[in-house]
Amino acid sequence: MIKKKPAYTVAILGATGAVGKETLEILEERNFPLSGLRLFASKRSAGEVLSCQDKEWKVEELTSASSFAGVDIALISATDDISREYGRRLGSSGVVVIDDSGVFRMEPDVPLVVPEVNAGALASMPRGIVAIPNCTTTPLVMALKPLQDAVGVKRVVVTTFQSVSGTGAAAMDELMTQTKDLLAFRDAKVEAYPYQIAFNLLPHIGSFNEGGDCSEEVKIARETRKILGAPSLRLTATTVRVPVLRCHSEAVNVELERPLKANEARAALAGMPGVIVYDDPAKKLYPMPLDATGKDEVYVGRIREDESVPNGLNLWVVSDNLRKGAALNAVQIAECLIAAQ
Amino acid sequence: MIKKKPAYTVAILGATGAVGKETLEILEERNFPLSGLRLFASKRSAGEVLSCQDKEWKVEELTSASSFAGVDIALISATDDISREYGRRLGSSGVVVIDDSGVFRMEPDVPLVVPEVNAGALASMPRGIVAIPNCTTTPLVMALKPLQDAVGVKRVVVTTFQSVSGTGAAAMDELMTQTKDLLAFRDAKVEAYPYQIAFNLLPHIGSFNEGGDCSEEVKIARETRKILGAPSLRLTATTVRVPVLRCHSEAVNVELERPLKANEARAALAGMPGVIVYDDPAKKLYPMPLDATGKDEVYVGRIREDESVPNGLNLWVVSDNLRKGAALNAVQIAECLIAAQ
Repeated sequence: MIKKKPAYTVAILGATGAVGKETLEILEERNFPLSGLRLFASKRSAGEVLSCQDKEWKVEELTSASSFAGVDIALISATDDISREYGRRLGSSGVVVIDDSGVFRMEPDVPLVVPEVNAGALASMPRGIVAIPNCTTTPLVMALKPLQDAVGVKRVVVTTFQSVSGTGAAAMDELMTQTKDLLAFRDAKVEAYPYQIAFNLLPHIGSFNEGGDCSEEVKIARETRKILGAPSLRLTATTVRVPVLRCHSEAVNVELERPLKANEARAALAGMPGVIVYDDPAKKLYPMPLDATGKDEVYVGRIREDESVPNGLNLWVVSDNLRKGAALNAVQIAECLIAAQ
Repeated sequence: MIKKKPAYTVAILGATGAVGKETLEILEERNFPLSGLRLFASKRSAGEVLSCQDKEWKVEELTSASSFAGVDIALISATDDISREYGRRLGSSGVVVIDDSGVFRMEPDVPLVVPEVNAGALASMPRGIVAIPNCTTTPLVMALKPLQDAVGVKRVVVTTFQSVSGTGAAAMDELMTQTKDLLAFRDAKVEAYPYQIAFNLLPHIGSFNEGGDCSEEVKIARETRKILGAPSLRLTATTVRVPVLRCHSEAVNVELERPLKANEARAALAGMPGVIVYDDPAKKLYPMPLDATGKDEVYVGRIREDESVPNGLNLWVVSDNLRKGAALNAVQIAECLIAAQ
């Protein structure tokens, strides 16, 4: 898909958002072969200057008149509307689009990719678009894949604890501002969510369908099946927003097809690239959002056999939603596409 | 067990703790027939004056020399050691002991009671002791009971989101202090928990056993079976401390014995005394800790059929851990015992 070059021109649509800023850091950290960088955002952020790989890059306003001449790869993490408009336009004009929205994920001619799990799906990108999963799906499939390969996965019950950065930079500001206001005995202003998030929990991510599921819960089930190539995998999710700034955590109960001891599960997970088994509860070692913030790996701990069902297993999975859950996964996909040339 | 009287002398052991203070409020709100009140705490709190039912009551230091002459009912919510020592001593000397610790809950000759669920168990109190469940178990059995009665409960996967008040007043202070310090860019002091709780999650409540379960997870399973009179009920739990001040929340996945539509589940739950069904997600109505704080009822929402298993159901349960989870349940038990005379 990408012609072999010594370096590539990358466009970031949504460059000043929480994921966009993380993407810049990751391009720098990984020394991504950049020949140029085009940063796009809304009018409000246009003109800002951001640095990456020892250069300064000016943010441009994204408009229908924006030219993408010379752009090889576009990373989109903005609104669904922007993904819909620019994803199609750029994908059909020869730019490789790596999209972070829910717009394309379930389309059969768009691969949905976590490189460690299903990089092979990148072989077919007829629309020039590859989608990255929801930031909750990615760590889940990273933890399920080695179990699926070892003994098969029959059913998953997942409960998520999602940080406010999954909503974006404004929600992070809102958690901090609400917290400050409440500590000063002032009312908390509510904008990013339907209710106060500081010192509270919202069992509501996305919109509700008629059956009472959140869109986030539906996404996790559908995307997990697509990525794992397991269309009949049984999965139910409950998604909850928690007053944490970064990292999504997940309590995952798995019913496996065949027996797997906790130690065997630890070994299988430890062999999975991008996963770190962090599991020694007697020494109080278990994954926490605070420790996983800024890390690339998906942390798995609290690995326990669950005797309430044959071949049951419990896991606790924590991952930085802005890194592996979004920006890092997108950059890794770009690296895979380049390496394939 | 309790002789019929116009009013009773109640002792509170642990009167200045989070549960003790809530108990005083509840005795007042419910106009409990008090002829006297004895408030006990550690030396540090002795001499404090607390008010209840328009009177002031001085806190006494609890020592092995403390006299309980004239006390009819003792409510204990302190440490396991205090429950062990005073629970036995008072129970065997004719005082009715209502104990909030884990010391007696699983003893076969001690009833473990949530009045709406199994008040009948109060008929046999050979040791003069009745135990109240863990603050996470109580709302869970309140939600499971009507489902058990309607169609039977086969298996439960529960993930908890537990507030810091479950640990006590010092942990509530620590969450506030850590939050203030972090907002002021100071380090967070860690005392109540192994790690910072502000803006973080700890998948660790109690101590770990060899299989990697927390004691809290083990308690929920054992206590739920005892209260529901269902020794073979299959249940697995993952318990997580969250940066919330009050109320415990639980994502509950239930596999029922026979089919039950979401609407039938709503009707069954709505008919359960002490439960409020708060479930209209299209109108953004679902239980949250913020709303349930200070409330007596157990709130159940997000009631959804789970198609990943035959007869599956998802629930989201929120309850004030200091009220129904502790102080209220204890006072309700005292009221039951009085009414039975």
